[in-house]
Amino acid sequence: MKEVTLGIDIGGTNTKLGFVDRFGQVLAADSIATQAEQPVDQFLVRLYAAIEALRKKTTEVLDIKAVGIGAPNANYYSGMVEKAPNLRWGDKVPLAQLIEHHLHIPVRITNDANAAALGEMKYGVAQGMKNFVVITLGTGLGSGIVVNGDLLYGDDGFAGELGHVTVDPNGRDHTTGLKGSLETYASATGIKRTVFELLAKRIHPSGLRDISYHEMTALMISQAAEKGDLIALEAFEITARLLGMKLAEAVAVLSPEAIILFGGLAGSGDLLVKPTKKYMEEYMFPVFRGKVKLMLSDLKGNNTAVLGASALAWVELDKLKTTTAPSV
Amino acid sequence: MKEVTLGIDIGGTNTKLGFVDRFGQVLAADSIATQAEQPVDQFLVRLYAAIEALRKKTTEVLDIKAVGIGAPNANYYSGMVEKAPNLRWGDKVPLAQLIEHHLHIPVRITNDANAAALGEMKYGVAQGMKNFVVITLGTGLGSGIVVNGDLLYGDDGFAGELGHVTVDPNGRDHTTGLKGSLETYASATGIKRTVFELLAKRIHPSGLRDISYHEMTALMISQAAEKGDLIALEAFEITARLLGMKLAEAVAVLSPEAIILFGGLAGSGDLLVKPTKKYMEEYMFPVFRGKVKLMLSDLKGNNTAVLGASALAWVELDKLKTTTAPSV
Repeated sequence: MKEVTLGIDIGGTNTKLGFVDRFGQVLAADSIATQAEQPVDQFLVRLYAAIEALRKKTTEVLDIKAVGIGAPNANYYSGMVEKAPNLRWGDKVPLAQLIEHHLHIPVRITNDANAAALGEMKYGVAQGMKNFVVITLGTGLGSGIVVNGDLLYGDDGFAGELGHVTVDPNGRDHTTGLKGSLETYASATGIKRTVFELLAKRIHPSGLRDISYHEMTALMISQAAEKGDLIALEAFEITARLLGMKLAEAVAVLSPEAIILFGGLAGSGDLLVKPTKKYMEEYMFPVFRGKVKLMLSDLKGNNTAVLGASALAWVELDKLKTTTAPSV
Repeated sequence: MKEVTLGIDIGGTNTKLGFVDRFGQVLAADSIATQAEQPVDQFLVRLYAAIEALRKKTTEVLDIKAVGIGAPNANYYSGMVEKAPNLRWGDKVPLAQLIEHHLHIPVRITNDANAAALGEMKYGVAQGMKNFVVITLGTGLGSGIVVNGDLLYGDDGFAGELGHVTVDPNGRDHTTGLKGSLETYASATGIKRTVFELLAKRIHPSGLRDISYHEMTALMISQAAEKGDLIALEAFEITARLLGMKLAEAVAVLSPEAIILFGGLAGSGDLLVKPTKKYMEEYMFPVFRGKVKLMLSDLKGNNTAVLGASALAWVELDKLKTTTAPSV
């Protein structure tokens, strides 16, 4: 019998699942369409079938100890998914309880950025760290904050929303109604918006002038920058300045050992990291200068989200052990 | 024998000390001049004499269990006071160790804002709270952050520097070399700087036009605002907008149950709290709106700083008990 946890990452389009051992080895993984427009009951029927199929596919006999789930607007304390904008599940779905009732093993949920932070702590570059921040740079900007070795959930379970701090109170629109949130600048969408501003402001020739707003991706901007496209390079500089400034603020509040960049836009590597580091140091309260590492996640492949979710399950199992075995 | 802790608050001008019981009763308190230009050894000789004198003055027989100290640039982890700008003590003074060696009881140090947060948790409006932020609004702006019932020290012991987040990267000068830090706007000094900007910008008559920069105090601005002075009222509005915006950002990161305003400028009461609350809600990530209390400290009198320092000692004593008595 092989002890594993089941990691599940629920996205607006796909849901990934996988069995992961204590060392971050993914024994088997699969993916199903989330079909976010369907009610949660139908999603669960398909999820349970996928779990069963995956279990049968695995050559080893599995002892599934717990389930960890990363999902949008997932509340760790209540086990609820609350008003997730890309899931038509209604206001509050007691996701953890529903799955626990079906599988009869402990189930914990949190949002994807928090799961990513736990993945880094268990299996990635944050191993051994007690205070760090993971920034997920995808369509939006998420963050998972670890303080004293524990994920920071805050009073209501939703702490760590660094994507929604204000860069410019008169700045870009956001679906939240806020203006100029960090994620409207520092994310795959954000850098695209910056490119479009620059296409209007500058008169340089640029290959990016041939691509529509809907077609343009962060990867295209990276590739253009690598070829020396001035618009793309300036867009990275602007993104890095604003991200670096807000990371410096996060350092002043949290004093982490490291900040780890994760997700799509982090794939731009040095294009983003080098100037971000420069600006982070520039805007930083002097006592912290030169002390805080800015790193890229080294978790690779399709299963990083599953690893994060499984890490949540392992962390929770360790907690259960500590609190229920006082005589050890 | 009465069990007490000794709370010591070291400021650039005065050092306050007092014996405090577990319930926040100050049994005796005193104050000496810090004489910040003298070496630390001379300060300690006078401090020990003051402690001895205070002990003799107290009618009850005291059992002093531990010492808690609030001091500028005090590092909780190392026990060092590091490069405190208003103390001529040199780069690093092992203050906790020096005093521990002399008094033979546990000594812990932290900065004054952290001590204030512990004071609120032990004796003030934060009793029973696990996640909250205390903002000290004095000459500068300090903050003490409590997460899961513990003070947030971060990786290097200096977390919680909310005064040094950036409001405007092209904004006001600060001795740190940073531009536009929050404390250059939201503090007793900050609101005065705002008044001086407005005296230049506006043409309203104002009693504040008769007062020099060096003479003007936050209290004068409060009093002018209460009499309807338009410059003073606008200065409070501007201060509240910037403070509210940055508090909303702190909420997005930390998800606290409450934010507690403490210190000189907090004495302006509703003049500051009402508009700050309004702007905090306006700039807040929607999921947190209406959930976070903005409160004024209710610790009154001359001994609030001593209470905070003594709270640090009580909290540390409780920790020692938990970790050294496994068989209980």
